[in-house]
Amino acid sequence: MGLIVQKYGGTSVGDVERIKNVAKKVAQYKAQGHGLVVVLSAMSGKTDELIKLAYQITDEPSERELDMLISTGERITIPLLAMALQSLGLKAVSLTGRQSGIFTDSMYTKARITKIAKENVQKYLHDDYIVVVAGFQGVDESSNVTTLGRGGSDTTAVALAVALSADKCEIYTDVDGVYTTDPNVVPQARRIERISYEEMLEMASLGAKVLQTRSVEFAAKYRMPVVVKSTFKDGPGTWVVEEEADMEKVAVSSVVYDKNQAKLTVVGVPDKPGIAAKIFNAIARAEINVDMIIQNVSVTALTDLSLTVPRAEAGKAMKLLESAANEIEAKSVMIDEEIGKVSIVGVGMRSHTGVAAKFFSLMADANINIEMISTSEIKVSCVIRKGDVDRAVRILHAGFHLGGGEPRVEQAH
Amino acid sequence: MGLIVQKYGGTSVGDVERIKNVAKKVAQYKAQGHGLVVVLSAMSGKTDELIKLAYQITDEPSERELDMLISTGERITIPLLAMALQSLGLKAVSLTGRQSGIFTDSMYTKARITKIAKENVQKYLHDDYIVVVAGFQGVDESSNVTTLGRGGSDTTAVALAVALSADKCEIYTDVDGVYTTDPNVVPQARRIERISYEEMLEMASLGAKVLQTRSVEFAAKYRMPVVVKSTFKDGPGTWVVEEEADMEKVAVSSVVYDKNQAKLTVVGVPDKPGIAAKIFNAIARAEINVDMIIQNVSVTALTDLSLTVPRAEAGKAMKLLESAANEIEAKSVMIDEEIGKVSIVGVGMRSHTGVAAKFFSLMADANINIEMISTSEIKVSCVIRKGDVDRAVRILHAGFHLGGGEPRVEQAH
Repeated sequence: MGLIVQKYGGTSVGDVERIKNVAKKVAQYKAQGHGLVVVLSAMSGKTDELIKLAYQITDEPSERELDMLISTGERITIPLLAMALQSLGLKAVSLTGRQSGIFTDSMYTKARITKIAKENVQKYLHDDYIVVVAGFQGVDESSNVTTLGRGGSDTTAVALAVALSADKCEIYTDVDGVYTTDPNVVPQARRIERISYEEMLEMASLGAKVLQTRSVEFAAKYRMPVVVKSTFKDGPGTWVVEEEADMEKVAVSSVVYDKNQAKLTVVGVPDKPGIAAKIFNAIARAEINVDMIIQNVSVTALTDLSLTVPRAEAGKAMKLLESAANEIEAKSVMIDEEIGKVSIVGVGMRSHTGVAAKFFSLMADANINIEMISTSEIKVSCVIRKGDVDRAVRILHAGFHLGGGEPRVEQAH
Repeated sequence: MGLIVQKYGGTSVGDVERIKNVAKKVAQYKAQGHGLVVVLSAMSGKTDELIKLAYQITDEPSERELDMLISTGERITIPLLAMALQSLGLKAVSLTGRQSGIFTDSMYTKARITKIAKENVQKYLHDDYIVVVAGFQGVDESSNVTTLGRGGSDTTAVALAVALSADKCEIYTDVDGVYTTDPNVVPQARRIERISYEEMLEMASLGAKVLQTRSVEFAAKYRMPVVVKSTFKDGPGTWVVEEEADMEKVAVSSVVYDKNQAKLTVVGVPDKPGIAAKIFNAIARAEINVDMIIQNVSVTALTDLSLTVPRAEAGKAMKLLESAANEIEAKSVMIDEEIGKVSIVGVGMRSHTGVAAKFFSLMADANINIEMISTSEIKVSCVIRKGDVDRAVRILHAGFHLGGGEPRVEQAH
C-alpha cells in the first residue's frame, strides 16, 4: 500500500498497442492499492529520429535547441498513456519534466538534476491520480528545457522515487533483469538475482546499458531499492540493493564490454610538471568523460599520453586536444577508433586475491593483447582490439564460471 | 527598423528543406535591421497525425491530455528553425508557448489567450536574438498546457504583435493573399489588395480558412496591421486593415463557403417561454459554436428548432440536445450532415441596398433551395444542400462581378 515509482523504456511504449499494455499493467498495480508514479521514455527510435532531423538542418546543432527538440518524444508517450489509463476508468494525469518540478543545471544534452520541487506530483498523488511523468527532461533555473543524456529516464525515475520517499523504484525494460554478461554474446549468460549498488554502478559506467550510471548513483546515495524487470513477461527481475554479506562469496559477478570508445594519443608531450593538467583541463571544461589515461614512461624529454573517451565525443575531444597540443608544443594527436573495453566487476574482489592476474592470463592464453588497464577495488578493465572483444567476453565469462550450469561461487586462487 | 512578428504555416515548415528556406527569408528581413519574432506552426499533417494516435488509444481522449500531445508539433519546428538560423550565423532562440509567456484560460483544445507575459521575449529581442515562438499553444494559470484551436498560430502571432507593439504582423502561408473566393472552385477568383478587419472577421467566421477568427478579432481590437503573403513567391499579399472610405464602393468583396457544418433539429418542442433557453444553455456550457438558429412558426402547441454547428462538434451537440429534449419533453433530435453554407461579405452592404435580394434571386434562378438564412450589416449567409455549394459559389462570384476581368465596383440595384 505504499508508493511505487515505475519506469517503462522505449520498447515498452514503442507503439499504441504496447502503450495500452503498459496501461493494463499499471492498472493492476493500482488495483493493489499502491500510489503510482509512472515515468516514460519516448517510443523506441523516436529520439534518434529527432536527432537525425537536427543534423539534416545543420552539422553543429546548438545543444539548447537540440534539447528543445529531443524532449518532445516523451511528451508524446505521456499523454497517450494517461488517455489509456483514463479509458480503463482510472484517474491519470501526464506531467512534463517542468510540471513534475525537475530542475537541472544548464549542461544541455547531459544535464544533472539539482532539485525536485515535488509539490505538484504530490498534489495529484494525494488526489489519487496515477501521475505519468516525462522522463529524460527537466528545466534549468531560467526555464530552458534540458535533457539528462541517454537513459536519462532511469535517473528521472530514481530521483523522483528518492524525492517522494517511495518504497521502491521499478525499471521495466525489454530484458528480464541484469545479466552476468550480454546474452547476445554469451548464450550461457545468467540473470543475477541481487546485485550491489557499487557493482551496478561499475557495470553501468563500464558500458552495460541496462541502467543509466547516474540513476544508480542516486539509488546508491539514498539507498533506494531498484528492481529491473521485463515489461513483457513476469519474473523476479534483478534487485539492485545494498551490499549483502553473501555477495562477497562471489569474486566476479559480471563481465561487461563497451565497443563505443575511442583512444586519443597526444604524441611527443614535453615531460614537465603541469603539462598533463593543461591537457585535461581543456577536456574537463567541455564535460567530456575521460575514462582511462596512460602516460608512457619517458626515456627522453618527450612522452606520449593516451586517453579513452566515448566515441560520440571523440571528434570534439580531438579538436580540444589538438589545440592543447599546439599550446604545449606536443608533436601531434592520433585517434584510434578500433578499440574495445572488457571488464569484470564484483564486490567479492575485495576479499579475493589474484582476480586481475587470472584476467590477464586468460587473455594471454587466448593471445589477446592488452593495451591499457584500469582497476578499482571491485573491477578490472582492459582496452583491447575491438575485433577481440566478443571472444574476450566469452573467455572471461567461462573462465570466471559465470554461466548457468557452473557453480556461482568462484574461489580465485 | 521596427519590430515585425511573422508567422509561417504548416506547409511553409513542412520539411527540412522548407525550414531552411524560411530561415533564409527570415535572415533577409533581419539584414534589413528589423527586430523579429517568428511564430511557427507544426509541420503540415503533424497535428492530425498526433490526433490520430490519440484516437487509436481511446474514442474519447481527455482534452487536457490531447493538448499535451498536439502541442508537441510546434515544439519540433521551432528548434529546427532556430538551428537553421544559427547555421546562417544569426542569434536565434526557440521558445515554447509558456516560455513566451502566453497564458490562456483552461478551455482545452480551444483556449483563449488571457495574458502575455512578454518579458522573456523582450529580453531576447533586446539581446538581438531572432525569437522563434511555438504557435498554437499556451499554459493556463496552473501551468497546464493548452492549445488555441485550429489556426491558433495566427492568433499567437497577432497577440504577440499587439503585446510587443510590433509595427505589423505578417502571416506567411501557401497562398499569396486573401481571395474573392476559393480559387479551387472559381478559377477567376482575384486576390484582394486591402480588406477591412470586419470583412476579414466575417470571412473567417463564415469558413474562409486563411486566418483564424480570433486572430482577426485581436487585430481589429488593437488596430494591428496584418498582411497575408505567400512563403513561396514574392508579392504584395493582402492587407487586413481599418475600413477605408473607398472600400464602401464595393458592395460585396468576397464569397465564402463552408462544407463542414451540420444541422441539428429538435422536433416537437413545446412552444412555451424558456424552452429555447434550456436547449441553448446546455450547448453553450459545452462551448460549442452554434451558428444559425431557426425556430419554425408554430401552428400547434409544438414547434421545431434547428441549429447549425461545426460538423466536428455535431456528435457532442447531438448528445447534449438529446438529453435536453428528454428534459423538456420534445419528441426527437435529427441530424443532417449534407448541408453547406454560402455567404457574401462586404462592408459596402451598409450603403448598398438590395444585396440580399440579389443573392436570393441568383439562387432562385439556379433552382437552388435556401434552407436557412442569417444576415448581418456586412454579410448574407444561406444554408443550402452540400451538393449545391460549388455551383452557388460560382454563380455568386459571377453575379456580383468579383472576377478578375470584371469591374470591381458593383452597384447593387
